[in-house]
Amino acid sequence: MTTSTPPITFDDVRDAATRLEGVAHRTPVLRSRTLDALVGAEVLLKCENFQRVGAFKFRGAYNAVSRLTPEQLARGVAAYSSGNHAQAVALAARELGTTAVIVMPEDAPRSKRAATEGYGAEIVTYDRYTEDRIAIGAALAAERGLALIPPYDHPHVMAGQGTAALELLEEVGELDALVVPVGGGGLIAGSATAAKALHPGIRVIGVEPEAGDDTRRSLAAGRRVEIPVPHTIADGQALHIPGELTFPVNLRLVDEIAPVSDDEIRDAMRFAFERLKIVVEPSGATPLAALLSGRTAPVAGRIGVIVSGGNVDAERFALLCGERRRNLRSGHG
Amino acid sequence: MTTSTPPITFDDVRDAATRLEGVAHRTPVLRSRTLDALVGAEVLLKCENFQRVGAFKFRGAYNAVSRLTPEQLARGVAAYSSGNHAQAVALAARELGTTAVIVMPEDAPRSKRAATEGYGAEIVTYDRYTEDRIAIGAALAAERGLALIPPYDHPHVMAGQGTAALELLEEVGELDALVVPVGGGGLIAGSATAAKALHPGIRVIGVEPEAGDDTRRSLAAGRRVEIPVPHTIADGQALHIPGELTFPVNLRLVDEIAPVSDDEIRDAMRFAFERLKIVVEPSGATPLAALLSGRTAPVAGRIGVIVSGGNVDAERFALLCGERRRNLRSGHG
Repeated sequence: MTTSTPPITFDDVRDAATRLEGVAHRTPVLRSRTLDALVGAEVLLKCENFQRVGAFKFRGAYNAVSRLTPEQLARGVAAYSSGNHAQAVALAARELGTTAVIVMPEDAPRSKRAATEGYGAEIVTYDRYTEDRIAIGAALAAERGLALIPPYDHPHVMAGQGTAALELLEEVGELDALVVPVGGGGLIAGSATAAKALHPGIRVIGVEPEAGDDTRRSLAAGRRVEIPVPHTIADGQALHIPGELTFPVNLRLVDEIAPVSDDEIRDAMRFAFERLKIVVEPSGATPLAALLSGRTAPVAGRIGVIVSGGNVDAERFALLCGERRRNLRSGHG
Repeated sequence: MTTSTPPITFDDVRDAATRLEGVAHRTPVLRSRTLDALVGAEVLLKCENFQRVGAFKFRGAYNAVSRLTPEQLARGVAAYSSGNHAQAVALAARELGTTAVIVMPEDAPRSKRAATEGYGAEIVTYDRYTEDRIAIGAALAAERGLALIPPYDHPHVMAGQGTAALELLEEVGELDALVVPVGGGGLIAGSATAAKALHPGIRVIGVEPEAGDDTRRSLAAGRRVEIPVPHTIADGQALHIPGELTFPVNLRLVDEIAPVSDDEIRDAMRFAFERLKIVVEPSGATPLAALLSGRTAPVAGRIGVIVSGGNVDAERFALLCGERRRNLRSGHG
């Protein structure tokens, strides 16, 4: 055990919140009587699926880009991502008057590519089977003098992402537990930093797809454990090792990691659709999945949930959720 | 032209709002930069898909049941509906301490039946091919002394439904236009009554599926015109003649009826899903469809939209919206 300075403090999250004011949406907190009855607790859903670019990623990207020097902003930013982070960096760059280059696989979904270009970013593609995106990103950044904005492993990104929990707690007051999806660990690191500073007794629960439980294993081992790249519908959480900077924060502040199966995620997405009337992407549905399937240790009282994103197109939703699970169907028959 | 007393006044809508306070949800008003850019106006979406029972119908049903005498409440209420009105009457009855009998076709979707029973209502089924639901409802009401709550053609129902527009206008202030789905005409009659009382210059635009344009034809003719029962995905608007009480109100207050095709409705549902991250049922998506497809006369400035409901299950959504329209797909290719 070491007692080094944590990479982020509560002040960093508060500073990020000030920078995001009037730029990021103050997303709504939804409640559902049905959900409360099923979970046996009061559940408060912080709906980052209504955030700009459809996910919490905008908070971290904007905070990080806003901290660059005028010289850095004059040269531009870069990121590698085929997901929500790409759009988040592209929009943050546009909002802050700079340019963005996004490195994406050639076969990225056309809708993601179009959305990123729609925010004015330049797309550089690579062949994901023969080329290394990290090397391409680094080479681009070096060649053009661009500032690379990582998706989670950066103090300003973590602090920005943590403003989701800060806003929730400011709006609803004290909570008994906070349930957060875990991918690279930036959202939960920032959220736990804010939550435990405000309410030291709050239980912070992360949720991972069970196929990609690198953070659960790592917390149990007390060190970063690498796993094979997981196969899961939760594409925002298909990571094989916790972040270098996020992990020590989470080792100190996260109380539990709950695993959920892809079927449980599908059921939670369908529940969100049919009962809550909101669109939630697979990764964003993992906390709901954990609560509805009883995959966390027993929780009671008031539970905050970060619904982290809603970027799933109608075709993919139809494939994932258009047919009810057989066991459920026969269960109701 | 006659100058008879209108069946409802603005005071009726205001009275209904008082009764609904703390019982109906004060639903959120959502905005979208993308939508504003596509429509070329500021669009404010009153999200009744987040209302209790998932649709505006609760407003009218609760207002009507709440006006019954103690004697009527002691005997109970009845309704015939396989849709949102069934759940609305069942929940209103439960909230007001009375009982509800709902007449539904034997082959009504199991989910609708289960939801209605979940609110404590008794279900009486009939064979829709051989029996007449109106006769069954009337016989039941007479036999058991039940008060029949109609889905739209009743002053208290219209006034209650109009509170959706009243709330919207209270929250966002003056609007240039208000766009409302038209089925039996209760929602638009109540909404137009409130809107024109507050802002006489507001343009009230109704939207119908083009296959079921009975109100458009009737307004053009100046009298109720009957059409064959329409085939449309907008099941909440598959009506063949305007209401007896709603029509004179709409003849006086509605400025335009825009027709939309089923394909335009599907596109609007998909837009709501992918861009707004909300679930909207076919009838609820018709105003969005009209705006996105340019089916209304040109509108500018600030436009209010009643998103009337979100009751579509994941399987039906997948069938309706899981595949992109061919012409759109090739258009983007």
